[in-house]
Amino acid sequence: MTQQVVIKEVAARDGLQAQPKHLTVEQRMSLLVALAQTGVPELEIGSFVSPKAVPQMAGTDEIAANLPPVDLAYSALVPNMKGYELAVQAGIRSHAIALAATEEMNQNNIRKSLEETLVMGEDILDRAAAEGVAVHAYLAVAFECPYEGPVSESLVLEQVDRLMQHKPARLVIADTIGAANPAAVQSMMQKLVDRYGPDQLGCHFHDTRAMGLANVYAALQAGVRQFDASAGGLGGCPFAPGAKGNVATEDVVMLCESMGYETGIAMPNLLDAVALLSDMIGAPQGGRAHTWLTKQCA
Amino acid sequence: MTQQVVIKEVAARDGLQAQPKHLTVEQRMSLLVALAQTGVPELEIGSFVSPKAVPQMAGTDEIAANLPPVDLAYSALVPNMKGYELAVQAGIRSHAIALAATEEMNQNNIRKSLEETLVMGEDILDRAAAEGVAVHAYLAVAFECPYEGPVSESLVLEQVDRLMQHKPARLVIADTIGAANPAAVQSMMQKLVDRYGPDQLGCHFHDTRAMGLANVYAALQAGVRQFDASAGGLGGCPFAPGAKGNVATEDVVMLCESMGYETGIAMPNLLDAVALLSDMIGAPQGGRAHTWLTKQCA
Repeated sequence: MTQQVVIKEVAARDGLQAQPKHLTVEQRMSLLVALAQTGVPELEIGSFVSPKAVPQMAGTDEIAANLPPVDLAYSALVPNMKGYELAVQAGIRSHAIALAATEEMNQNNIRKSLEETLVMGEDILDRAAAEGVAVHAYLAVAFECPYEGPVSESLVLEQVDRLMQHKPARLVIADTIGAANPAAVQSMMQKLVDRYGPDQLGCHFHDTRAMGLANVYAALQAGVRQFDASAGGLGGCPFAPGAKGNVATEDVVMLCESMGYETGIAMPNLLDAVALLSDMIGAPQGGRAHTWLTKQCA
Repeated sequence: MTQQVVIKEVAARDGLQAQPKHLTVEQRMSLLVALAQTGVPELEIGSFVSPKAVPQMAGTDEIAANLPPVDLAYSALVPNMKGYELAVQAGIRSHAIALAATEEMNQNNIRKSLEETLVMGEDILDRAAAEGVAVHAYLAVAFECPYEGPVSESLVLEQVDRLMQHKPARLVIADTIGAANPAAVQSMMQKLVDRYGPDQLGCHFHDTRAMGLANVYAALQAGVRQFDASAGGLGGCPFAPGAKGNVATEDVVMLCESMGYETGIAMPNLLDAVALLSDMIGAPQGGRAHTWLTKQCA
């Protein structure tokens, strides 16, 4: 009767890419070793983007060549076909592509139209399917866009339907700016789970407004069982207490396990990884329940 | 089509009673004036307990005699029949009584058996009904007890059924130690809403494990529309960041209003009250989304 929840740990990518402090490749490797020891089944190692655009992610190919020998799914973010090719060359067979759901986000962020972005995504998905590479397709700003405001559910559902025809290994609904509310999450994810089943779906939440755990619960209620999370809640501004980034892995593990789900993640190991992150970043990291969890594991 | 959510503000009672710093009656009056200006429909002013046991609440009778002339429901906590009589003498016509749901909590906390506590509660409810006083009956430690561990749902449902025969104005399920998870909340509250309807029910959550908002969402899903909350999340240890007390009023307002519910509370006024609290306590107060909310209202 046990129900598994699959967590993809994204601190080493989505977390680190937002940091003003740039970690060395060696530090990022140490972090990945610590994260691999938590028992997490999926681990994002970095992204194959231009080091000029995102210097925090320079050297991801070097990391890909030296991954800890742990039996889990390593993946990397690729921004486009060039990134796809670099990641494959580096030996990565599980990719994430992020496609913003609104016209203005695409125009402002990557100077492409929404249609051009979707076609790029479809091309990558088709090539990956032919080459046996697993791709998680992310629909970013799926609830609210910093340029357009609230995003209509029907617009997102249409884009999902279109992308699903190209058989992503997973379609991830991403609340990129942390603006989703649980009612909107439950409504959208219930429709998607009814249409596609839970195995092909995931959610990626940011905890900007402290509704991250409520949103995870709402998605669980809708049947979603695959979530991105970031150790220590890394991903916001690390020097502004309360300006949280991604929903913290330890908060998601606590929530899920308190309700009887299994994540396979060992909390003491995870808190060790968060402590390592705090050292490296030079500022205390930790999710919303950090104080309580730390006491529990002391 | 608008749905109202009724918030009872408990910072001036449940929040302050946990503080090592004791505010003066004048400070508590200033806080109540600020809280009354937020638009909150229900405001707990203090408790009629022995000043030896809870010195933070000494002088509640003086406060009761000088309440801000705002049209809202003022209430006070009464621990027993003596407290009930003192509160009525002070002119308070809306009371809260807290009854712990487990044998061990009652034995350890007030040296009564669970049965004695229930009988005391029934006596107060019967007298209040006869005298036209509204009483909110709280079932404390309704999900987990610090002495007995997890509390069975059926035990709580039995106690609710028994108390409901004595017609409380509201029956409030209280997660006193912040140990509830949203699945347990939704299960219990759905059964109670099905049995009694939402008008007679409320929830009181603590945010110890950062699941406060997820629990509020779960209760909303079950149909609950009445919640206790504390401005600034006051109620935990104010000098340990992250050791949160009651679920913060501003977080609950944000959650509810993001989903289209109306609370009647003006966020800028509420944040002013939180700032006043921070000054008085001498340490920054604020809910989980404090940084984000402060920016929004700047």
